[in-house]
Amino acid sequence: MIAKKIHLDEKEMPKAWYNILPDMPTPPDPPLNPGTGQPIGPEDLAPIFPMGLIEQEVSQERWISIPEDILDIYRLWRPSPLYRAYHLEEVLDTPARIYYKYEGGSPAGSHKPNTSIAQAYYNKREGVRRLATETGAGQWGSALSLACQFFDLECTVYMVKVSYHQKPYRRSMMQVWGSEVIPSPSDKTNAGRGILEKDPDSPGSLGIAISEAVEDAATREDTKYSLGSVLNHVLLHQTIIGLEVKEQLKKVGEKPDVLIGCCGGGSNFAGLVFPFLPEKLAGEKIRFLAVEPTSCPTLTKGEFAYDFGDTAQMTPLMPMYTLGHDFIPPGIHAGGLRYHGESPLVSVLHRDGIVDAVAYTQNPVFSAALTFARAEGIIPAPESAHAVKATFEEAIRFKEEGKEGVIVFNLSGHGHFDMAAYDAFLAGDLEDYTYPEEKIAESLKNLPKVK
Amino acid sequence: MIAKKIHLDEKEMPKAWYNILPDMPTPPDPPLNPGTGQPIGPEDLAPIFPMGLIEQEVSQERWISIPEDILDIYRLWRPSPLYRAYHLEEVLDTPARIYYKYEGGSPAGSHKPNTSIAQAYYNKREGVRRLATETGAGQWGSALSLACQFFDLECTVYMVKVSYHQKPYRRSMMQVWGSEVIPSPSDKTNAGRGILEKDPDSPGSLGIAISEAVEDAATREDTKYSLGSVLNHVLLHQTIIGLEVKEQLKKVGEKPDVLIGCCGGGSNFAGLVFPFLPEKLAGEKIRFLAVEPTSCPTLTKGEFAYDFGDTAQMTPLMPMYTLGHDFIPPGIHAGGLRYHGESPLVSVLHRDGIVDAVAYTQNPVFSAALTFARAEGIIPAPESAHAVKATFEEAIRFKEEGKEGVIVFNLSGHGHFDMAAYDAFLAGDLEDYTYPEEKIAESLKNLPKVK
Repeated sequence: MIAKKIHLDEKEMPKAWYNILPDMPTPPDPPLNPGTGQPIGPEDLAPIFPMGLIEQEVSQERWISIPEDILDIYRLWRPSPLYRAYHLEEVLDTPARIYYKYEGGSPAGSHKPNTSIAQAYYNKREGVRRLATETGAGQWGSALSLACQFFDLECTVYMVKVSYHQKPYRRSMMQVWGSEVIPSPSDKTNAGRGILEKDPDSPGSLGIAISEAVEDAATREDTKYSLGSVLNHVLLHQTIIGLEVKEQLKKVGEKPDVLIGCCGGGSNFAGLVFPFLPEKLAGEKIRFLAVEPTSCPTLTKGEFAYDFGDTAQMTPLMPMYTLGHDFIPPGIHAGGLRYHGESPLVSVLHRDGIVDAVAYTQNPVFSAALTFARAEGIIPAPESAHAVKATFEEAIRFKEEGKEGVIVFNLSGHGHFDMAAYDAFLAGDLEDYTYPEEKIAESLKNLPKVK
Repeated sequence: MIAKKIHLDEKEMPKAWYNILPDMPTPPDPPLNPGTGQPIGPEDLAPIFPMGLIEQEVSQERWISIPEDILDIYRLWRPSPLYRAYHLEEVLDTPARIYYKYEGGSPAGSHKPNTSIAQAYYNKREGVRRLATETGAGQWGSALSLACQFFDLECTVYMVKVSYHQKPYRRSMMQVWGSEVIPSPSDKTNAGRGILEKDPDSPGSLGIAISEAVEDAATREDTKYSLGSVLNHVLLHQTIIGLEVKEQLKKVGEKPDVLIGCCGGGSNFAGLVFPFLPEKLAGEKIRFLAVEPTSCPTLTKGEFAYDFGDTAQMTPLMPMYTLGHDFIPPGIHAGGLRYHGESPLVSVLHRDGIVDAVAYTQNPVFSAALTFARAEGIIPAPESAHAVKATFEEAIRFKEEGKEGVIVFNLSGHGHFDMAAYDAFLAGDLEDYTYPEEKIAESLKNLPKVK
C-alpha cells in the first residue's frame, strides 16, 4: 500500500508564527555579555541584527503575524505535504501509524528557507544592503542565497573549507543564486587570519565560520549577520512546520504520541515540536524526541552551561547544552548536525525533561534512510535520516508493546546533494564513530567562567 | 513581484490520459520489421513489452483511463504546480505573461515518473518480474528504479559508460532505489561485446545502451524492456502534464499563445503540448515550439525517414526525424537531449507544420537558466534550460511586436544533479558546438533501405 498525502489548502496556511517563550514553564536565562557578565540588551545585538528580528528574539507575544510578503514566498512551495507512510508501516510491520512532514520541496531542498526568507525580509525592510553568514555543508548558505535573490540583497557566505572543496555542488548552488562564497578560514577577517597563522591548513569548522561572518557584519555599516539555527527568532520562523502539521493531523482525526526531529542547532526539531507544547503541558502524553549523531552528542553528552556560539569567542554567552566552543566534531556526512552547541530554547526544555534526546552512529542511520527511500520514494538528507532512524526505533517499540499510536517525524530535506554519503554507505566505507566521553570532558574544561 | 502558484486540487487531477492518435490530421506510418519490411504487429512487440502497453501503443481511443493504483502514486506529488513567473516577466521587461509547469517535485526530480510508474504497473499486472532499460545521464534510469520499488519489480539499468563514471550521483540514486546499474557497453550482451571487441574503450551511447537493454529483455523469459521516451504509450502517459495545465490556465482565465518544451525523444514536450492539439486544429492560434541543442539537432537538421531506434539495429524501423542511428552527439550537459531520433508522433506533427522547432548552443541556454534561477528560485535541469532559453526569445519577440500574450513552458526537472554543468558555465568552460551539416549528411547516408 502506497503512502498518502494529507493536503492542506493554501487558504489554510498559518498566518502567524508560534512563539514558545510565554508558554515555557522555565524561561531561558538571558544571553550574557562575555566582557561584563551582564545580560545583553537589544542595543548589543543591533550592530549585527535588524530591530525586527531582535524584537522577535525577546518577544513575549504568543502569536507573531507573518507579513504578507513572506507568505507570498512561502506559498511557492507551502503548505508542505504531510504523508501517511502506509508502505513503511508494512515494511516495519508496526501497529504504529507513521506520518512524515516533507520540507524538501523548497527550491533549496530543506526547511531552511522558512527562516531565510523571513530574515531577508526584515533586513531589507530596515535598509540593509548585504548579509553575511556561515555554512557547513551548504544547506543554510544556499537557503539564504535564495532569500537574498528574492529580496535583492547581496550575500556573502563563509563556507567551512573542507566542505567548500569536498562538496562543490552546494557551493555552485549558492553561486547560481548570486552569492559570494568564501572558504573559511579566510584572510578576509581577523578571526580567519588568526586561525590561518596557527594552522595554514586548517580545514575550518562551523564555529570558525561563524566568527568570520559575525566579524564581517560587525565591521561593515551596510551589512548584517544572519544565522540559520540556534536563536529564538530562527526557531520561531520554523514553527510554521508544526502549525501546518497540527492542521493536517486534524483533517485525519489524529493526535501525535511521538514527535521526532533531528537536532543540530535545533531549528527543524523546534519547528515541528514547539507548537505542540501547550497540549503537552495541558496533560496530553506526547513524546518530543530530538535525534543527534554520537559523533556530536550535544544533548545526550554535553553540559548545560553558558558558552560561546563560535570558536573565536565573539558571540554573547548563551545558556545551552554544549560540548565546548572549541569542540571539533569529526567529518560525518550529516554536516548540519556538526555544531558544538544547541538552541537555548531546546536546551532548557531538555534540561526540564520536556524534550528527550537520543544519539545514533552513521551506519544504522543510513540503513534506515535506505529502507525509507525504498518504501516511500523520497531520499532523505543525512541529517533528516537521523529522524528516520529514531522513527524506526519508536515504531518497533510500539510493536513490542503491542500498542497503536501516532509517530510524526520531520523529513527536513532531501539527499540530492548527499549521494556521495549514500555511495560510501553502500560501499561499506562509513565509520560508526562515538565521541569518547573523556575527550568531551577535556573540551568542557574550556567553558568560559561566567562573572 | 514574486511568482504565484496556480493550484489544482487533487480532486481535479485528470483521471484519463489523452491519446493524440485519433486526432492527428495525418496518422504516422507503422513501424516496420527491418527483416521483412512489413508493418510490425502486437505479436512482434510481445517479447519485450506487456500487452497493456502494446494496446496503448496502437489504441484509437481518445481517452484512456488511468488505473486507480497509478493515480494513488501520482497523488504523492501531483497535481504539479503551474507558476505565473511575475518576477521573470519584470526581469525580461516583457508584456507577455509567462507560466511554467514544474515537474521537478517528483522523488526522481523530473517528469519521467509519469510514465515509469505506469509502465511498472502494466508490467506487474501481467506477471513480469524484472525490467531492463537504458539511461544516459540517469534521469530515466532513476525514474524507472523508483517505479520498480513501488511495484516490487527487479530493475537492471544499462547506463552509458561515460556518464556512469562522470555522473556517479544519479547512479547512486538508482542503487539506493535497489537497481542493478551496469556501465554500457558491457560484456553482458552480444550487442555490448560486439562494440567492446571493436573498441574496448568505447564511452558508450544511448543507442548502444538501448541495444543492450532490448537484448537483455528479449532473451530472458521473466524480463521486459522499458523505454523512457519516443514511443506512443510513453508520450500518452506524459499528457497528464498538459491536461493539468489546461485546468490550471482555466482557473486564471488564460489561453496559451505559445507552448514550449525541450525535445530529446519528445516525451516532456508532447506531455505539455498534445492535449492542446484539438484547440489548435479548431483554429486557435497556438504555437507548439520544440527546443533542442545544436549539437544534436534532430528536428531542425535531421531527415524524416525510417530508421532504427538503436545503434545495433535491433529495434523496429520507426518513421521519424533522425540524424542516423550511428550518429553520436558530443558530450553536452543536457544528456537527455542526446538522441539521434525523435518520437514518430512529434516527427509527423513537425513534418506537417504543426510543431515548430528551434535549436540553441549551450552557453545561451545556461545563461537563460541562470537568469531564471535568480528570478524564480528553481534551478532548471540542463534539458529544461533549453525551454527556458526559447521562452526568453519568445518573450522578447512579444515585446518587440508590442503584443500581449501567454507563454507556457515545461520546466521538466530540477538541476540538483547537474551543478557541475553550472560550475562549468560559470567558469566559462562550456563549448558552443553546432554539429556540422556535412557530418550529419555523412551519418544520414547510413539510413536503412526500406524494402
